[in-house]
Formats: sequence, C-alpha cells, structure tokens
Amino acid sequence: MKQLEMLYEGKAKQVFRTDDDDVILMHYKDAATAFNNIKKATIEGKGVLNNKISTIIFGYLKEAGIPTHYISTLNERDQLCRRVKIIPLEVIVRNIVAGSMAKRLGLEEGLRPSNTIYDICYKCDELGDPLINDHHAVALGVVTYDELKRIYDMTAKINEVLTGLFDRMNITLVDFKIEFGRTSDGQIVLADEVSPDTCRLWDKTTNEKLDKDRFRRDLGRVREAYEEILARLEALKK
Amino acid sequence: MKQLEMLYEGKAKQVFRTDDDDVILMHYKDAATAFNNIKKATIEGKGVLNNKISTIIFGYLKEAGIPTHYISTLNERDQLCRRVKIIPLEVIVRNIVAGSMAKRLGLEEGLRPSNTIYDICYKCDELGDPLINDHHAVALGVVTYDELKRIYDMTAKINEVLTGLFDRMNITLVDFKIEFGRTSDGQIVLADEVSPDTCRLWDKTTNEKLDKDRFRRDLGRVREAYEEILARLEALKK
Repeated sequence: MKQLEMLYEGKAKQVFRTDDDDVILMHYKDAATAFNNIKKATIEGKGVLNNKISTIIFGYLKEAGIPTHYISTLNERDQLCRRVKIIPLEVIVRNIVAGSMAKRLGLEEGLRPSNTIYDICYKCDELGDPLINDHHAVALGVVTYDELKRIYDMTAKINEVLTGLFDRMNITLVDFKIEFGRTSDGQIVLADEVSPDTCRLWDKTTNEKLDKDRFRRDLGRVREAYEEILARLEALKK
Repeated sequence: MKQLEMLYEGKAKQVFRTDDDDVILMHYKDAATAFNNIKKATIEGKGVLNNKISTIIFGYLKEAGIPTHYISTLNERDQLCRRVKIIPLEVIVRNIVAGSMAKRLGLEEGLRPSNTIYDICYKCDELGDPLINDHHAVALGVVTYDELKRIYDMTAKINEVLTGLFDRMNITLVDFKIEFGRTSDGQIVLADEVSPDTCRLWDKTTNEKLDKDRFRRDLGRVREAYEEILARLEALKK
C-alpha cells in the first residue's frame, strides 16, 4: 500500500489517497480545536493516543457487528480505512446533558434524562454546523428518511456497545459525536474516530473529566486524561 | 358567561377567566411584535381582522374533524375557547423554505423541498424559543413520544386542510406556526389562532406577501394584507 497525495486536511486528521482507490490513509495529528475553530492548540502526543484508543474501540465495534470504515493500523499515527463519501451530518448521542445542549435547553449539566437524546447537526462551516432535525436533513438532500432510520439504529447500537465498554472502565459515557459515510457499494458505515476528542467521559468515582473538555475549559492535564483512557482500555484486555 | 380577571397577556392576545372554569375568553389585540419582541408596533384593526379570519378557519378545521380549543365568537375582538394547559412547543410546518429556516440551512427563500418540513421550538422567552428536536422535548418533560406522534399527525392534517383552503383563495401557504394544549380530560387540541400573524401567505399570481412579514420586513400595507385575506375567505363562502 503506497501513500499518495493528501485529499483533505481536517482539524485533527489528514487524509491521504493510496494506490488502492477504495482505501485511504488516516493520519492522526496533535492539533486540537474547539468552538468552531476559534480555540486552537497542539496537544503533544494526542494523535498517537487517539490512534491507539480508536484502534481498540474499532475492534470492539467490529466484534459487535457494527460496520465501520476501519481496516487496520499501520503505525503510531496512521490507519488504513475504507474510502467513503461522508454524509455531512454530525450525529450526537447524549446519555447525560452537558455542554451546548445544557445551555440550549436551560438544563443543569449532569442531568440524566429519562430518554437517550439524539441530535443531528449539518456539517457546514459557513453556517456554523447548525442543529437541524430529520426533515431538514432530507430537505437538504443529504440523506433519506430510510437512511436516517438506519443511521439512528446503528447509533443506538454503538451507544450500547460504548456505554458497556466505558462502564467496565469505571467511566460514564456522557455523550459522543460520530459521522457516517457511504461506501462505493452503497453501504452506510461509521466513518469517524471514537476517542476523547469526540466523547465526553467522566470518571464514575471522582466525576473527573477525561476528555477534550479539559482543553475546551482550560482544566489542564489534557494529555494525561487521554493517557488515562488508553491505560484503562489496555487494562481491560489483560 | 361572565368575563372575569385577566389570566395572561400575550403578544397579540389577552386571556381572561370566565365564570365557567373550562372556558376562557380570548381578546385579540392590535399589537404586533417580531424578532422575539425586539420590534413592536400597533396595527390598527389587526385584532378585529384576526378574530374574523381565525373564526372562519376554525370552522373549516372543525368540519375536517380536527379538535381545537375554539367554542364561539362573541364580538369583534373576543372568542370563547376551551381552557387548556398549553404544551410549551411551537410546531412549525414549512411547505416552502422561508425566513429563519432559509438562513439556518443556507437555502434560497422560496425553495419547495421534496418533503414537508416540521420544526418544533421550545417556548421559553429566556432561551429565545430555541429550535429543538423530539428527543429534547421528551427530555424536557413537556411531552411524550406518543403525544408528539399525535401532534405531528394532527399537524399534517391541519396542513392538508389549510393548504387546500388557501389554494382556493389563490394563495400559497408557505409555512405556519401552531400550538397545542391539553384539555381537563386529557385530550390534545389545537390551541392557537390561524391568521396572517402565524402563517406565511403568498399570492400565487403576484408572489406578494399577505402576512406578518410585511411588518417584519417593513414592506408597508400591513393591514391591507390582512384585509385581503379576510376578503378572499369571505368570497369563498358566497
């Protein structure tokens, strides 16, 4: 497999073409951004940690029968993934109310609602990734109602797998963000990392935040939090 | 029926208690507000027009079997309605993209999407009536998933009746906002006026706006637009 030119540079990753048209190389960077790119920093080693963390998590998702874009991990910072067309939606699952949603709904951060909350945001930098609903997504032409149903079903299953996994690590999965893509044969697959960049993770005993909120809210010890997540994931395997 | 003390003063109406606990008196004012109360004015005679317009429309909805809070019209500005507990949601139906939704989605005003768009906003002045989705509404405890289904079903039927009605008046029903309430015996009913205050109405031939956008956008001839809607409604009956 040969790494060819860069196709796309995201906030936390670079994506390269390979000599196989159906395979891309995903390179994990140390860059961190928040609040729609207003806050930026480098967190030394974050890319290496997220590559390792997401590699382990992709393994658990595969075991559970959830189709993802992940193929294999090449080295400290690089993964091979199936090439997909990204559906421009951020799908967010909230087991506990936190962050922007607490403000929007006027609810206390930390509240556990009686139901699981699913949000979708339209990925569009100029519009600021607005919260939308299913009807808007269909009107925008980015997805059909049937595809949305499949996406929500997969998302619920992913939430079940991840909640159980983090539970065993003494961590509450507060919320997480994922994206989906369409493969060349039309299958919808999870096409996003799962890492402390994209999840809110609270230690069940101390309530300590072990995720990107440490960066967003200037809580310090950001890298250490990511290291803690990796250590607990690796401890499970023993 | 005796009019007793005022229970509530809204932007365009006052609500009074009556000597029947299950009946309220709805008084239509001339006040107009827009953009969350930032823009305010008096439109002479608007209350009288909206009382007449909504009275006629409640008649058509009743004929179609849609339960509403409307009982009868007392005089130029007053209606008797069933007393309900308002569900704090604005339900918005969009047959054509216009207004805030065009900006949020980055779509051209006037676009007719392939699907009917339904929005719900959480009625909460301090939060600015934010757009939410079904999961948020349930998490807020204002409604159950089953009640939402009933509300959407009723809303679709109301849209069908109103679209047909305005069609016969050579008017496109672009979008409208409604609210629902629970009666003392637990029934969910439409509990909101339907008028040029709450609908976008475009003349099919000229595309002229015949609704509150004339006030929001300083287009002039606001009262005349409301008079035109009433005239076309009355012409239908002949």
